Amino acid sequence: MTERMISLNLATTRQQWGFAEAVDGCLRAGITAISPWRDQIAAIGLDEAARIVRDNRLQVTGVCRGGMFPAETSEGRQKQIDDNLHAIDEAAALNADCLVLVVGGLPGSSKDLPAARQMVSDGIAAMLPHAKASGVKIAIEPLHPMYAADRACVNTIDQALDICEDLGETVGVAIDVYHVWWDPNLAKAIARAGRMKRIFAHHICDWLVPTKDMLLDRGMMGDGVIDLPAIREMIENAGFFGPQEVEIFSQDNWWKRPGDEVLAVIKERVAAVC
Amino acid sequence: MTERMISLNLATTRQQWGFAEAVDGCLRAGITAISPWRDQIAAIGLDEAARIVRDNRLQVTGVCRGGMFPAETSEGRQKQIDDNLHAIDEAAALNADCLVLVVGGLPGSSKDLPAARQMVSDGIAAMLPHAKASGVKIAIEPLHPMYAADRACVNTIDQALDICEDLGETVGVAIDVYHVWWDPNLAKAIARAGRMKRIFAHHICDWLVPTKDMLLDRGMMGDGVIDLPAIREMIENAGFFGPQEVEIFSQDNWWKRPGDEVLAVIKERVAAVC
Repeated sequence: MTERMISLNLATTRQQWGFAEAVDGCLRAGITAISPWRDQIAAIGLDEAARIVRDNRLQVTGVCRGGMFPAETSEGRQKQIDDNLHAIDEAAALNADCLVLVVGGLPGSSKDLPAARQMVSDGIAAMLPHAKASGVKIAIEPLHPMYAADRACVNTIDQALDICEDLGETVGVAIDVYHVWWDPNLAKAIARAGRMKRIFAHHICDWLVPTKDMLLDRGMMGDGVIDLPAIREMIENAGFFGPQEVEIFSQDNWWKRPGDEVLAVIKERVAAVC
Repeated sequence: MTERMISLNLATTRQQWGFAEAVDGCLRAGITAISPWRDQIAAIGLDEAARIVRDNRLQVTGVCRGGMFPAETSEGRQKQIDDNLHAIDEAAALNADCLVLVVGGLPGSSKDLPAARQMVSDGIAAMLPHAKASGVKIAIEPLHPMYAADRACVNTIDQALDICEDLGETVGVAIDVYHVWWDPNLAKAIARAGRMKRIFAHHICDWLVPTKDMLLDRGMMGDGVIDLPAIREMIENAGFFGPQEVEIFSQDNWWKRPGDEVLAVIKERVAAVC
């Protein structure tokens, strides 16, 4: 396991560091892959972010995030699609491995999940020509079913792959263990993603017991119940050998520690338990 | 919609009423079906509970709950199976439609979900002869994936049906909308359950946005995002016409209101939105 195999999703140090500080921290730790969020890119400016990436020969394992397609009106949906086109431009400027999509949940007061899911497929289809022209891969990130209402109505790898099959090889999946570890069909779904050559990213953290907050209480690898080596094996057997991208939202623990300490623990844990 | 079509899961008024008080409340509201929990049965005594059920000609749509099979040692697993045999006796004494199983999560410090799932299948298989001899149906309740670690490692209807197929017609599913509403495969899974004639219970409540507590913040029907009529239609199309059993864990809202008020709202909502 070399440091090259770790990517830092910059949400992990969101409370400590901006884009440039996070890159400095990564380089101090020997980590040369990152995955920034769009607000972090905007804060420093896309040109400066791209310069930092280029000058330091960083791998950008993803840009977080596009998506959020469902809206109550066609104007609302078009506005979201337009924003996704900008996100493609940002991913292209950073030479990112993919643009990660959190696809969105139920729009407004709707209870119509199939309709929301159709809006997602339609939204991705609408951004596809620009993605292809820009050489940017689109990674649907299935989110845990507990986010189906308000964040993402794509909730399993198989569901995402069904969309990928309809839309062609530019669209794949970002597999985040936090969202999929429980899936009784996980091994088969990852193998299917491999056969389709659609695994574009692998995100890691851990599921804590108890989980005190549905969004901001993710665990450091090794502190929870996810069998990380088993899932990594499935993913490598499926042909993906890219970095394990560490993405931890942790308002009461890791966001409160110095960034350098967080990165040191990440390196230890990736070596020991991933 | 007649009142006969509502069953009160007695967890819904757990903080207000014991078994006898809850039955009295149901009868005042014209509700003649209940689903008690084992601690509530134990508190009044099985004989007295059975007498109340008989004398009032109540339908018992389920006894909650058996399950919790995974344990670190074979002795621990046997202890759980023995407890499930007692649960079968209680369900038989109350002439319940089924014994509901919350199957259990990861035992001890295990991260081996497939092994836990095997313990569940083995545990149900071990209780099956006594269930058959007692004329008690066993209903696996797939729980929401957010409970996979600590409550139930059976998380989709399809996963439960796979177990049912292996174990025969005594074993079916309790379909609780709270746990399954997000499933992209829901319609197909319910239709499959219907073809197998394995729908033994239908539980309702609602998914609130936001959900403030992962266990005790369930919503009253109509207050959340679940398309209850759509799911009921799937279930009736699959051949199940039993009562809709209302099961709401709500520490900050419904558990704090008078039981009679809760039942009045349930009746209104079942008529209006279910």
